[in-house]
Amino acid sequence: MSDSARDAVTAAPAVVTAEALRRFATAVFCRWGLPEGDARTVADVLVWADLRGIDSHGVTRIPMYLRLLDDGDLNPTPAIKTCLETSATTVIDADRAAGPIAMTTAIGKAMEKARDAGIGVALVRGTTHTAALGYYTSSAAEAGMAAIAFAASVPMMAYHGARVASVSTSPISIAVPGGERGPVVLDMATSVASMGKLVQARKTGTPIPAGWAIDEHGRPTTDSSVAMTPLPLGGPKGSGLALMIEFVTSMLVANPILADALALEGRGKQRHKQNAFALAIDVARFCDPAVFRNEVDRLVAAVKTLPRNADAAEILVPGERGSRTFAERSARGIPLPGPIVAELARVATRFGVAMFPTDRSR
Amino acid sequence: MSDSARDAVTAAPAVVTAEALRRFATAVFCRWGLPEGDARTVADVLVWADLRGIDSHGVTRIPMYLRLLDDGDLNPTPAIKTCLETSATTVIDADRAAGPIAMTTAIGKAMEKARDAGIGVALVRGTTHTAALGYYTSSAAEAGMAAIAFAASVPMMAYHGARVASVSTSPISIAVPGGERGPVVLDMATSVASMGKLVQARKTGTPIPAGWAIDEHGRPTTDSSVAMTPLPLGGPKGSGLALMIEFVTSMLVANPILADALALEGRGKQRHKQNAFALAIDVARFCDPAVFRNEVDRLVAAVKTLPRNADAAEILVPGERGSRTFAERSARGIPLPGPIVAELARVATRFGVAMFPTDRSR
Repeated sequence: MSDSARDAVTAAPAVVTAEALRRFATAVFCRWGLPEGDARTVADVLVWADLRGIDSHGVTRIPMYLRLLDDGDLNPTPAIKTCLETSATTVIDADRAAGPIAMTTAIGKAMEKARDAGIGVALVRGTTHTAALGYYTSSAAEAGMAAIAFAASVPMMAYHGARVASVSTSPISIAVPGGERGPVVLDMATSVASMGKLVQARKTGTPIPAGWAIDEHGRPTTDSSVAMTPLPLGGPKGSGLALMIEFVTSMLVANPILADALALEGRGKQRHKQNAFALAIDVARFCDPAVFRNEVDRLVAAVKTLPRNADAAEILVPGERGSRTFAERSARGIPLPGPIVAELARVATRFGVAMFPTDRSR
Repeated sequence: MSDSARDAVTAAPAVVTAEALRRFATAVFCRWGLPEGDARTVADVLVWADLRGIDSHGVTRIPMYLRLLDDGDLNPTPAIKTCLETSATTVIDADRAAGPIAMTTAIGKAMEKARDAGIGVALVRGTTHTAALGYYTSSAAEAGMAAIAFAASVPMMAYHGARVASVSTSPISIAVPGGERGPVVLDMATSVASMGKLVQARKTGTPIPAGWAIDEHGRPTTDSSVAMTPLPLGGPKGSGLALMIEFVTSMLVANPILADALALEGRGKQRHKQNAFALAIDVARFCDPAVFRNEVDRLVAAVKTLPRNADAAEILVPGERGSRTFAERSARGIPLPGPIVAELARVATRFGVAMFPTDRSR
């Protein structure tokens, strides 16, 4: 357990509006030194995750972002530049920008290329925590594009057969425009459960299901306080995907993460860095977009009415639970567990920023 | 159990050279009416799978290909045409070609586009069984490209929460060029185990591990004779990937497979068809390919020497076991189980083709 977690003042759980959380996060990042527009983008991406119920990637990450800034891993005023361009691709040097800044730039560039070439790929070199990938693929889907994104990061997950963190939990997100039901958005880690979920369970003192993680000795555990290394989805498949993502992302932009980290073998700490891959497909270049949207809805409807097995109360399509949570939390506010409120209160104190107003009546 | 399986004459297991199997398969497909070059391509792709140890996708599929031809689902003399083109993409109407014919065409076109645009995507509309996707991505990697491929097919796997076949076991393959160790090639189904492995277990009377499949009533089973529907990798993740693959493949080419099949609800049989997505990335456009290859080897070496957990005798990277089997079977021949030999003997009889010479001394 980190010092900050041990020292955390206890606080009551709270319910906060998205707007209040966004204002709070924006103010904090501004105080650190991010330009206001960038601070707002980072805040927006984090609070979007909270709204969608991806609590592990929401405002709970503010302390981590601040640590990355304090350590010099995250550059508050990056000079993002295009370092390579073809008719359908672009490579962006992110200059250690906050992930949300680099990724919104990247998905925008990929979409621009896709409008010309049918598809577009933006590769991001040297960003930091990319946050919830679904934010960027969803934004493409909202604009009528299909999108696929990967992120490559430092070793966190055990490679199949290894007992130490050796590959990233590299997320994969795929989104497509939908009709009346809106976009369908898959956003998944290549681990059984994301590192964020593990950290969240540790912060809130909740046990984890068997099969999620191993402890520092490589032993399976359900105790989130000692769970250290997430296990790959389906063994060789999950860690194989994570490895291939490092190849087609980090190695294409000549910014290897895993090989350098593994070469250190505990002798020193590697700086936090991530690379990313964003692909956009302009649906309208391939087919009638209205037909596409209707067909997406037709298949979703068919899947949702499939005969269910005994344990399943409902069949959900990718992102459906998130959309539902988004609607609910947009209306009623975002619930924050006590330990998270306490952590954010410490952040408020450090930066002399007003704590967000909370509704403790729920 | 199908009639042909019940009637199968028993036969001894055999060991056959790749060349003998290729000649046999080519002759059979020629007799059915495929042009010789196409027959040879299909044979080559199937035997490649046998050489790599992907027995489920090898010559064991010959009877299925013949059934597709007999039923009119597979067109022996297709007029494959490009029906849409952008600077970085192409859509190929496969005219119900054998998967290996459509897919070798597609990966070639994707690579051609990638040479110009940095990346290239070929979408395939209306092919049949695409066979081992790793064949096509490997061929791109051998030519210095990174490649990603998906295939969309008819319902075979249970969507998470459903008790019937509802999505495909849509495979994902990713390959990159390597240095001295050769390409790294991931080729995985989005199910826990591929349909091919299930069929192979059924043909050879082998039980299957728990968690692979459910029976016709939706109950979990380890009996391969009643195992009907494979389960998705990691529940919602595997079936989510399969669903998204249908969206970015079948729906982009306006040739929906799943929605049509699910709409039939058992009222009639849908014709077999598949669509596919092949992406090529010209590594040399992004970085020094020699550095890329060395870096791939460096990471592979680091992964292989990770501290292992107690159960792991060795750490394998994607495609490594396949390469090893390829070397071994290229030298010593391909072992075929008795039931497969018997099935192929029936094929030989039907077409008046000489049975391949076998080495039964092993």
